[in-house]
Amino acid sequence: MKIQPVKGTRDFYPADMAVRNWIIDGWKRVSIRNGFEEYDGPIFEYLKMFQVKSGDEIVEQLFSLTDRGGRELALRPEITPTLARMVNQRINSLAKPIKWFSVPRLFRAERPQKGRLREFFQWNVDIIGVDDVLADAEVIFTAVDYLRDIGLGPNDIVVKISSRKILKAVLEDIGVPEQSWDSLYPALDKKNKLPPETFEKMLNDLLPNSEMASRLREFMELEKVQQITNKFGYSEAIHEYLELMRYLDQMGINAYYRFDPSVVRGLAYYTGLVFEIYDKASELRAIGGGGRYDNLLKLFGGPAIAATGFGIGDCVLAIMLEEKGLLEKQLPKPKLDYFVACVDEAYKQAAVKLTMRLRSAGWTASFSYKGAKLSKQLKEASDQNARRCVIIGTEIENNQLIVKDMSTGQQKLIENDRFFAELES
Amino acid sequence: MKIQPVKGTRDFYPADMAVRNWIIDGWKRVSIRNGFEEYDGPIFEYLKMFQVKSGDEIVEQLFSLTDRGGRELALRPEITPTLARMVNQRINSLAKPIKWFSVPRLFRAERPQKGRLREFFQWNVDIIGVDDVLADAEVIFTAVDYLRDIGLGPNDIVVKISSRKILKAVLEDIGVPEQSWDSLYPALDKKNKLPPETFEKMLNDLLPNSEMASRLREFMELEKVQQITNKFGYSEAIHEYLELMRYLDQMGINAYYRFDPSVVRGLAYYTGLVFEIYDKASELRAIGGGGRYDNLLKLFGGPAIAATGFGIGDCVLAIMLEEKGLLEKQLPKPKLDYFVACVDEAYKQAAVKLTMRLRSAGWTASFSYKGAKLSKQLKEASDQNARRCVIIGTEIENNQLIVKDMSTGQQKLIENDRFFAELES
Repeated sequence: MKIQPVKGTRDFYPADMAVRNWIIDGWKRVSIRNGFEEYDGPIFEYLKMFQVKSGDEIVEQLFSLTDRGGRELALRPEITPTLARMVNQRINSLAKPIKWFSVPRLFRAERPQKGRLREFFQWNVDIIGVDDVLADAEVIFTAVDYLRDIGLGPNDIVVKISSRKILKAVLEDIGVPEQSWDSLYPALDKKNKLPPETFEKMLNDLLPNSEMASRLREFMELEKVQQITNKFGYSEAIHEYLELMRYLDQMGINAYYRFDPSVVRGLAYYTGLVFEIYDKASELRAIGGGGRYDNLLKLFGGPAIAATGFGIGDCVLAIMLEEKGLLEKQLPKPKLDYFVACVDEAYKQAAVKLTMRLRSAGWTASFSYKGAKLSKQLKEASDQNARRCVIIGTEIENNQLIVKDMSTGQQKLIENDRFFAELES
Repeated sequence: MKIQPVKGTRDFYPADMAVRNWIIDGWKRVSIRNGFEEYDGPIFEYLKMFQVKSGDEIVEQLFSLTDRGGRELALRPEITPTLARMVNQRINSLAKPIKWFSVPRLFRAERPQKGRLREFFQWNVDIIGVDDVLADAEVIFTAVDYLRDIGLGPNDIVVKISSRKILKAVLEDIGVPEQSWDSLYPALDKKNKLPPETFEKMLNDLLPNSEMASRLREFMELEKVQQITNKFGYSEAIHEYLELMRYLDQMGINAYYRFDPSVVRGLAYYTGLVFEIYDKASELRAIGGGGRYDNLLKLFGGPAIAATGFGIGDCVLAIMLEEKGLLEKQLPKPKLDYFVACVDEAYKQAAVKLTMRLRSAGWTASFSYKGAKLSKQLKEASDQNARRCVIIGTEIENNQLIVKDMSTGQQKLIENDRFFAELES
C-alpha cells in the first residue's frame, strides 16, 4: 500500500532538515542575545480559545478535532492566545517585563500556495508589561538583528510600519462609524493583496459613502508621516510614531524601515504600532509582522497589561534565502571527525570498537558496514566529509594505528594508547 | 474569559523549556556523533497510514481529524510509519545504509498518567538497509551512549533485550498456532504491567490450553539465554542473540544490558531483536524501546529491506533525571554577557544604543526598562546572571564607559572606541 503525505505538509529529508534547523537555530540565537527566554505551549488547545477575538480569518482556517470526551479542540494557528493564557495563569509570579520567544509549529487549513503551507514554523517574540514605545522598537530591532545576521541587508528587506492609533484617528476624522472599525481591519489589510479595483469596490461596500472610501484610500497611500500631519492634523499617535523612529535610528537600523499606512494587520487585537516585513522587491508575501496588542491578556481573563511582539514564518523566509543564494553560502556542511577504516574484514570488530570509543569521547565517528576494500572505504570517508581517517591494519597487532589527514593526505603511525590519551585530554 | 490548557498537554514556561531543550539537544548531539542524520515529517498524516499493521493498541489512541476536503487525518502517535513512507518515496536515490534520527512531537489520546502524556517528544534512531546484527548493536549503543553521557550509569538503567525470533521458535516448539502470534504480542507485552493473576488469566484465555500458557510464562521468566538452549534447544535466533552480545561487549556497554524474554514490544511489526530500557529499580515505565522491523517498508509499498531502531520518550526520562538530581546538576544556567546600566534617566538612550550594538556584535546583552536607581539596575543585572555590567554616566560625555566585572566587583574606565574594538575583534 502506497500512502502519500497530506497536501500542504512537508517531509523534511536530511537536506531539508538542515535548512529548517539552521533557520530555527538562528531565531533562537538572536532571541537569546536580545534577552528573550524561550517558552512553548501545546500543539492543540480548546477550540474556543482561538475564537476569542482572533478575527474571523483565523477561525475559518482551523484544523479542529474532538477528543474522546467530546471536547472540541483545534491545532494552534498562532501562539499568541497560548501566550496570553500562560502569562495570565502566572501573572502575579512572573517578573516584568516578560520577554519571551517561541518557535512554534503552527497549522492553517487553507489552500497551500507559494510561501503559505498548512503546517509551518513561526518565530514569535513578545514583550509584556512595557507601556513604552521602546518595547516596540526592541522587538523590531530583534527581527532586523536576525535578518541582518543571516545576510539580508536594507536592499533586500524593508520593515513597513504603521499605527492602529493613527488609523483610528484618521477613521474618526473621516467620520467612519466606530462600530465598523473592527470588521474593517481585515479588509484594509488586503489592500496590497488585491487588484486596486477589487479593493476599491470592497471599500465602497464596507463604508457609508464613496467619499469616505476615497479619503481612506488616500491616507493608505501616503508615504511620509509628515503628510498625515498636513492632511489630518497632529495627534498623540503621530508623536508615538516619531518617538519610535528616534529609537530605531539610535539602534542603528534606520536603513531598514519606512512608514507605510497601508499596513493594517488582519487580526482585530492590535492596538498601537503595527508592522510587516517584506522583501524589498515586494514579490513575495510578508516575511513576518507584528505590533502592539495591549488588550489581549484582558480578553483572556487577565489584567489590562501592555504587550507587543511579532511573528516571522519559515516558508517565505526560506524562499527568499534560497533565491538570494544565502542558504548555499551559509548552511554548515555536515562534518565527520573520524572515519574508521580497516584493511581487512578480520579487523572490522576492532574498527567498530574504536569507532564507539571515539564517539563516547565526544567525537563524530563512522565505520563502514559494507566490508569493502580499503579504497572504497576511503571513498566513503571522503563522501562523508571526514577530516581524518583511522586505518586499522596489521599494525594493530602491535597496538598501532594509522591516522590519515583527509585534507592533506598525510598519514602517520601512532600508538593506540597515545592516540586516545591525546583525544581524551 | 478564563481558558484552561487541555488535559495531558504541557505548558513549557522558560524553566520547563530549558529542560526540554537540554534533553533534545543531547539527543541531537549524540545522534550526530553516532553518524545519524536528522529528518522529520508532518505532524499529521492520513489516518489509514497508522492503520497499516501498527497494532490495535496504537490505532485506538489516535487523535483523528477531518480536513475541509473530508479527508481523514490523524496526529502522529509514532514516526516509524512516516519514516517508512519517506524512505520508500526515495528508496532508489538514498545512499545505504540510511542512518537517520528524529525528535518528533507525538500524540496519543489516552488517559494521562505519570510518565505518559497525550503530547510528548520521542527520540527516534533507525538504521535501514543493514541485514546484520551489528546494526542492532549500533542503535543500542547509541541509546546507551546518550544515557551514559547524561550521567545514567549501569546502576541506574538497564537495557532488557529479547528476540521475536527466539519467541517465535518457542511458540512453535510449544505448539501455539501461528495465526494467533500477531495478536499474542500486545498481550505478552503486558506481562510486567499487570498483576501476575491477571496476566495468567489473559494468557489462558488467549491460548488453546493452560499447559501452553504455563510453558510460555516459564519461558518469559528465564534469566539467561543459556537456559533457553537447555529447555528449547539451540536455534539460529539464539546464535543471533549471542552475536549481539559479543558486539555490545566490544562496544564497552556490557554492564548496561541483560537478556530478558519478558520483553516483547506491543507492535506487530517487529521481526528480530527487541529491547526496552528501564530504570534499574523498575519503578517507572520503560524509558524507551525498539528492535528490528524488516518487513515494515514492504508493508508500506516499498521493497523488502532490513531495518532496526528505537524510540526514547521525554516524560519518563525527565522524571528519572529529576529524581536522581541530574537535571539540577547539569542544566546550564542562562547567562548574560553584558548588562548596560545608566546612572541617570538622561543616559537611557545611550544605554539602549550600546545594548543593541553589543547584541549585533553577537553578545547577549540587556538594559533596564524600569528607569530605576543604579543600585536597582545592578540588582537586576545580578538577577539576570550578568558577567559584566557597563555603566553609563557623565564619563560618556568624554566617550568613556565604566565596565564592572560582576564576579570580582572590579570596575575599570575604558574608552568607548577601545571597548568596541576589543569586543568586535
